[in-house]
Amino acid sequence: MTRPVFRIIGTIVAAGALGSCVHPREPKPAACNQPRPVASATPHVQVAAKYAEAETPAPLSDALKNDEGMWLLNDFPSQRLEQLHGFRPSEEWLRHVQLSSARLAGGCSGSFVSLHGLVMTNHHCASRCIEQLSSTRRDYMKLGFNAQAEQQEAKCPEMEIDQLQSIVDVTERVHQATAGRSGAAFHDALKAEQASIETECTKNEEVRCDVVSLYRGGRYHLYKYQRFQDVRLVFAPEFATAFFGGDPDNFMFPRYDLDVAFLRVYDRGKPATTSEYFRWSPAGAAMGDLTFVAGHPWRTSRELTVAQLIALRDHALPERLLHLAEARGILTEYRRKGAEQQRTASSLLFGVENSLKALRGRLAVLREPDVFAAKVAAERELRTRVDGNPQLKALTAGALASIEQAQSRFETFRTEYRMLEQAQGFWSELFEHARRLLRIADESKKPNAERLREYTDAQRAVYTKQALSPSVIHDELEILTLTYSLTKLREELGVDNEIVARLLAKEGPAGLARRVVLGSRLKDIRFRKALFEGGKAAVDTATDPMLALARQVDSSARALRKEYEETVEAVTTKNSELIAQARFALFGTSLYPDATATLRLSFGQVLGYEELGKSIAPFSTFGRAFERATGIEPFALPKSWLDAKPKLALSSPLNFCTTNDIIGGNSGSPVIDRAANVVGVVFDGNIYSLGGDYVYDPIRSRAVAVHSAAIVEALDKIYRARRVLDELRSSGPATGL
Amino acid sequence: MTRPVFRIIGTIVAAGALGSCVHPREPKPAACNQPRPVASATPHVQVAAKYAEAETPAPLSDALKNDEGMWLLNDFPSQRLEQLHGFRPSEEWLRHVQLSSARLAGGCSGSFVSLHGLVMTNHHCASRCIEQLSSTRRDYMKLGFNAQAEQQEAKCPEMEIDQLQSIVDVTERVHQATAGRSGAAFHDALKAEQASIETECTKNEEVRCDVVSLYRGGRYHLYKYQRFQDVRLVFAPEFATAFFGGDPDNFMFPRYDLDVAFLRVYDRGKPATTSEYFRWSPAGAAMGDLTFVAGHPWRTSRELTVAQLIALRDHALPERLLHLAEARGILTEYRRKGAEQQRTASSLLFGVENSLKALRGRLAVLREPDVFAAKVAAERELRTRVDGNPQLKALTAGALASIEQAQSRFETFRTEYRMLEQAQGFWSELFEHARRLLRIADESKKPNAERLREYTDAQRAVYTKQALSPSVIHDELEILTLTYSLTKLREELGVDNEIVARLLAKEGPAGLARRVVLGSRLKDIRFRKALFEGGKAAVDTATDPMLALARQVDSSARALRKEYEETVEAVTTKNSELIAQARFALFGTSLYPDATATLRLSFGQVLGYEELGKSIAPFSTFGRAFERATGIEPFALPKSWLDAKPKLALSSPLNFCTTNDIIGGNSGSPVIDRAANVVGVVFDGNIYSLGGDYVYDPIRSRAVAVHSAAIVEALDKIYRARRVLDELRSSGPATGL
Repeated sequence: MTRPVFRIIGTIVAAGALGSCVHPREPKPAACNQPRPVASATPHVQVAAKYAEAETPAPLSDALKNDEGMWLLNDFPSQRLEQLHGFRPSEEWLRHVQLSSARLAGGCSGSFVSLHGLVMTNHHCASRCIEQLSSTRRDYMKLGFNAQAEQQEAKCPEMEIDQLQSIVDVTERVHQATAGRSGAAFHDALKAEQASIETECTKNEEVRCDVVSLYRGGRYHLYKYQRFQDVRLVFAPEFATAFFGGDPDNFMFPRYDLDVAFLRVYDRGKPATTSEYFRWSPAGAAMGDLTFVAGHPWRTSRELTVAQLIALRDHALPERLLHLAEARGILTEYRRKGAEQQRTASSLLFGVENSLKALRGRLAVLREPDVFAAKVAAERELRTRVDGNPQLKALTAGALASIEQAQSRFETFRTEYRMLEQAQGFWSELFEHARRLLRIADESKKPNAERLREYTDAQRAVYTKQALSPSVIHDELEILTLTYSLTKLREELGVDNEIVARLLAKEGPAGLARRVVLGSRLKDIRFRKALFEGGKAAVDTATDPMLALARQVDSSARALRKEYEETVEAVTTKNSELIAQARFALFGTSLYPDATATLRLSFGQVLGYEELGKSIAPFSTFGRAFERATGIEPFALPKSWLDAKPKLALSSPLNFCTTNDIIGGNSGSPVIDRAANVVGVVFDGNIYSLGGDYVYDPIRSRAVAVHSAAIVEALDKIYRARRVLDELRSSGPATGL
Repeated sequence: MTRPVFRIIGTIVAAGALGSCVHPREPKPAACNQPRPVASATPHVQVAAKYAEAETPAPLSDALKNDEGMWLLNDFPSQRLEQLHGFRPSEEWLRHVQLSSARLAGGCSGSFVSLHGLVMTNHHCASRCIEQLSSTRRDYMKLGFNAQAEQQEAKCPEMEIDQLQSIVDVTERVHQATAGRSGAAFHDALKAEQASIETECTKNEEVRCDVVSLYRGGRYHLYKYQRFQDVRLVFAPEFATAFFGGDPDNFMFPRYDLDVAFLRVYDRGKPATTSEYFRWSPAGAAMGDLTFVAGHPWRTSRELTVAQLIALRDHALPERLLHLAEARGILTEYRRKGAEQQRTASSLLFGVENSLKALRGRLAVLREPDVFAAKVAAERELRTRVDGNPQLKALTAGALASIEQAQSRFETFRTEYRMLEQAQGFWSELFEHARRLLRIADESKKPNAERLREYTDAQRAVYTKQALSPSVIHDELEILTLTYSLTKLREELGVDNEIVARLLAKEGPAGLARRVVLGSRLKDIRFRKALFEGGKAAVDTATDPMLALARQVDSSARALRKEYEETVEAVTTKNSELIAQARFALFGTSLYPDATATLRLSFGQVLGYEELGKSIAPFSTFGRAFERATGIEPFALPKSWLDAKPKLALSSPLNFCTTNDIIGGNSGSPVIDRAANVVGVVFDGNIYSLGGDYVYDPIRSRAVAVHSAAIVEALDKIYRARRVLDELRSSGPATGL
C-alpha cells in the first residue's frame, strides 16, 4: 500500500523497473516502487538542447532560455545562471536556502517560513496526516483544518521533517572499499561501507545520515540531517479547493488549486526555533521574474543507458500502468459504496490516479521517436568520445554491454521480484507491518554491515517509527487491496506457481485476504510494540495470521532480493560508476546528477507557453476559478469560498507556472525570488513536464505553483486564519504586509 | 457496451486501431471495436517459417509441421495438405464442410450436428442468450439448462445463425467501379458498388449477402448466407464448468472446461431440417491425428504494413489495454455488491477480462524484437522483389508511403474518433439503441448507395433485429458503464473540449449518466418500435433524454467518420489493393488472406508443446479436473460434477490441443477429422496463440478444444441429457455410439 502521495510524478513509479524498491535510506518494503538509481552515460543537457531546437512562436522563444537542471547546492552553476539570468548567488545565499528548505520524510518537500518552526508544504503532502486525524465524526479532508491556538495544533502520527545540515564528499572512501570487486562481493562491500559511514555519523535519533549516490555512483556524498519527529498540523484548506479540478485537471495548466498546508515542527513539546527560514513575499512572482525552486526531486532517469530505457518503455512502465489502471477501477467503484469508503480510500485513489497520469505522460515521451533517437545519438556520441581516449576506453570497456546483460537477466525474474520482494502481490499496510517486524527481528541479530540496508543501526529511528505508527488501519480497505493484489499475484505468476498454489489453493485471494486481515492483531499498536520489543523470540512464537503470511513468502522474497542485488544491481552500479568516471573526465560537474531525493536547486522564470497554437498565460485567477466551478465534484468549490467571494480580489493571481526543472518529490517546494523570499509553493507540473524523468523540455515543460499572494488572500479573506497570517507577516521582508 | 463475447481474442480488440468500427456487414455502432481490415504486403507465411527456425527439443520438432493458414474453402491448398499430412480432400468433402459449418451472427462459430437443426457451439458463445433467458428467480448461468422436450427449448432473444450457401468472385466489378478514383470519390464508389451488389443479391430477409474484402482489397467475394433467425437454447452446462479456472486459466493449457452448448435453428416454428451436418465421432481425436477447424476467424493483421503495426504497438493497443484494465477494476468491484450485480455483470466482465488477456498477449508478441524484425525484413523483401519488376514497381509506387501517411493523419484525430464515432465515450446499450434509431431515421431517407454502410437495404434485417431486440437492460449497470465511459471521454478529450464542456459541465459524468439512463424509455421495446416505425418524424419529435444525448454528439461523430473514411480508410484501402495486386503477381493464392470473419478451414494435428523445458501433453482428463477443484471460484466444480464423480471415467480426455491456426471468432468451431466427423469443439487458444493476430507460431501456438468423448461422457453421466445425446448418436457414423 503506497504511503506518500506526490502530486508531481508520484511515488508509484516504474515499479521494479530497474532496481530494488528500497531506496538507499528510505525503507518502504511493501509500498515502495522506486527503482534504485543506477547508471548512465547520456549527456542529457545536450538532449534537451537538441529538443529546444524545434520552432516556437517568436514572442515566447525570445524569452525562452534553457533552464534545465536540478543542481546540487554544493555544485551550483552560478556562472551559468549569471550568463542566462544576470544573477549570481553568494555562498551565504545558497547556505540560507539549504537551511530554510525542508524535506518531508514521506517523499515531499517543504520550507521553513517562520522563526517558530512553521513549515509550508502542499495539502496533498499533508493529506495522509489530515486523513489520520480525521474520523467519521470530523472529516478534516472535507472541512479543512485551522488551529485557533497552539494547543489545537494536532500531531501527525507519522510525519517527520528533516533539515539538511551538511554535505561531505565520501567518494574516495566508498570507491576504495569496492575497488577490484564485482557481483556479490561488490554489493556487500558497498553496503558495508555505506552502513559504516552512516553509523559513524548517526550520533543519536535526532540526526539522520544518508550516503547518497550521485551521478549513478560517480560520486558518493554523506548527507546529514536534523530530524524533527514531532510535526503538527496547523492549517489546511478543504480538499475541494486543494484539489479543485481533480484528476481531469491534474498535470494541466491553467490550474485553480489552493494546494497548500502549514505544519509546525516541535521540539520537546514546544514549537522549535528555526533561525533559518524563508521570508514571505506578499506581492509574489510577476511575469518574467527569475524564480528558484528548492526541493527534493525524488528520481530522474536522464542518465540511463538506452538498454535501460528500452526495458522501461517496453516492459516496466506498461506493466505498471495496467496495474494502476485496474487499481483505479477497483478503488473508484469501492468509494461509491458509502461515505466511509469514500473518506478512507480517497488518498489511496488520489495516489493511484496521480501515478497513472504521470506514468502515461512519461511513457508517451519515451515513445516519441525523436526523443528516443536523441537518447540513442547521445549514447553513441559519448561512446565515440570515450573511444577517442585510450585511457577512458580501457576504463569503460564492456560497461554498456554489462548493463544491458544485467537488464536482460533481470527480465527473467523481474515479475517474481516485483510481486514477492517488492510485495506488489501483498498490497496491505498490515502486511507491511508484518514483514517489517519479521525482518527487524531477523536482521537485528546480524552484524550491522551484513543487514538489509533498511535495517542497519543508522536506520533504527526510521524503522522504529514505521513499526510503531499509530496510523489507523481500515479492515475493509485492507481486504480490498490485498484481495486485488493477491489476484494479480496469481495472474502474473500463474495458478500452478508453487507459492501461488501454496497460498491460494484452499481459500482463493478473497478468502485468504479476509482471514488474515480480520484475524490479525497487527492493527493494535500495543501488539506491534510487544513484538518489536520482544525481538525474534516474540515474533517467532506469535501466531498472527498476517505474520504467518509474511513468513510464508519471506525466504523466497529474500532469495529474489539477493539475486537482484548481486546479479543486477551490483553489475549495474559497478559499470555505471565506470561510465560516470568517463563522463567526469569529459564533462566535469558541468552536468547535474540525476535526482535521488537529495536537495536540489533549479532556476527558471515565470513564463507561459504555446499549446495547439494557443498562448497559455502563466497566471490563473480567483475569478476564473469561480467561473469554472460547476458545483459538481471535482469542480465544486467549498462553501467557504462561495461565502467569501464578494470580498475576494477576483483578478488576483491564484496559480502560476515557471520554467523550473522539477519532478516528483518537488511537491511542496518553495518558489523563491532572488532575495530568497517565498513567492509561491510548487504543487504540480504541466503535462509536458511529465517526460522530465528522461528529458527536460525547455519549450513547454512548466512547474505549477500556488502564488504567495493567493495564499495570503485565502488565509485572510476565506479562512480568517489570523495566527498563520500574522506569523507569515512578522516573518516577511521589510516591505512586508 | 460490448455485446458478443469471444473466448478467443474477443471483440474488444485494438479499438479504432486502424479503421472504422463498423465491420462491412456487421453494424455495431457503439460496441464494436473491429478495425476494418485494411492492407498489407507482408508475405506472412515466410515470417512464420522464419519463426519456426528456432530450436525445439528433438521429439516434438520431429512431429512439427508448419500448419499455418486460415484458408478459403474455394481456394484450399489441397496439394500442400497432401504433402504435409498425406490427405487430399475432395470437392464434395469441402462442400460438405462448408454447408455443415455455422456462423453465429454475434461473432462466434458453430456447426450443424444433426438433421434437425441441432447446432453445437461454445457455452461462452451462447452465454448472452443464457443470461437473457435467466432471471433473479432462475439463473441458468449458474444452474445450466437442459430442455427435456422440444417445447422447453427456449428462444434466444438476439441470436441468429447463418449458413454459407455460395461464394462468387466480384473483384472485377468492384475494381472497375473504383478505377481511377481516390479519397472521398474512391470511398463513395466502393461503398456504392458494394451496396448495389449486396442489394441485388438480398432477395428476402432469409438471405444475407456480404461483399467481403480479401487480401485487403486484392479480391472481393460475394458471400451469400441462409439466415436462421429463430434460434433456441437446447442445452448448456453450468458456468462453473464451462469456464472452470476462470480468468487465471483463460488462454492456458492444460484446461478443464466443458465449454459447450447446444442450440437449435427453427423454421416457421418447427426444428429446421439441415440435410448437411457433421456426424459425431464418439472416440474423438487421438494423439497425432490430423484435425481440421472450420470457422469464422474474425480478424487477423498479418498483412499489415510495418507503419500500421507500429501504430498498433505504440498507440492503439496500449491505450485499449489501459481502458480495459480500468473497466475490469470497476466491474470486479461492482459485482461484489450483491447477487444481482454479480449475475447481470458477469458476461460483461468476462468479455473485458478476455480481451485484456488476449491483447496483452498480442502486444507482447509485437514487442518481441525478433518478430518485429522479421516483419520489417519481410516488407523489405517484398519491396525488393517489386522493385525488380518494372510493371509492379510502377503499379505500387508510393503505396507504402501513402499508407504510412494515412496512419499519421489518423493519429491526429484517432482519440476523438474513438470516443465519439466508435462511441467508447458512451458505453451503454441504451445509447446504442438511441444512436441506431437516430441514424436509421436519417439514413433511410437517403438513396441506398449514399447511406452509412450498416444502414443499406441489404442490412435492413440486421439493424431491424438489433433495434427491436427484447434483451433486458439493467439500469444500474448502464449507469455504471456510461459513467465510466463519460469519465474517459472527459479525460481523453480534456475538460475544456467543446463537446465535453457542453455535455458534462452542469452534471458531471455520474449526473448525466444517471439522468439519461433513468429517464430513457428506450428500454421499452414498444417505445423503440414506435420510433422505428414512425421514422424521422417520430424520432425528431421524441424527447427521450438518451436520444437527446445521441443527437448532441451525432454531427461531430459523423464528421469524424467522414474524415476517417475519406482520409484514412480510402487511402489505405486503395493503396493496399495495389500492394495486394503486386503480391498476387508474385505469389498467387499460395498465401491465404487475412481473416475477415469469413468461413475458413485450417488443418493441424493433435500435438503437445514444450514450455520452460517441460513437455505439455495435448490432453487433459476428468480426473485432473477434480484434483484441481478447490471449491473456491473459479476453481469450484458444480454439484452435478461432484455427484457424478463415482460414475465418470476419470482417465478419459476432457480437453485437447492441436496445431490448427485459429483466432477470435473461431470460438465454437468444430474440430473434425479426415472423415469430417466431429472430434471436438474449439473454445480457446493457448497463450502462444495470442500473437496469431500478427504471426503464427508453429512451435507453440495451439488451439484448445473440448473433446467429443468428453461431451458424450458429460451429457450421459453428469447431465443425463438423453435428448441431445440420442440425437448425436443417431447422427453418428456407422461405427456410432
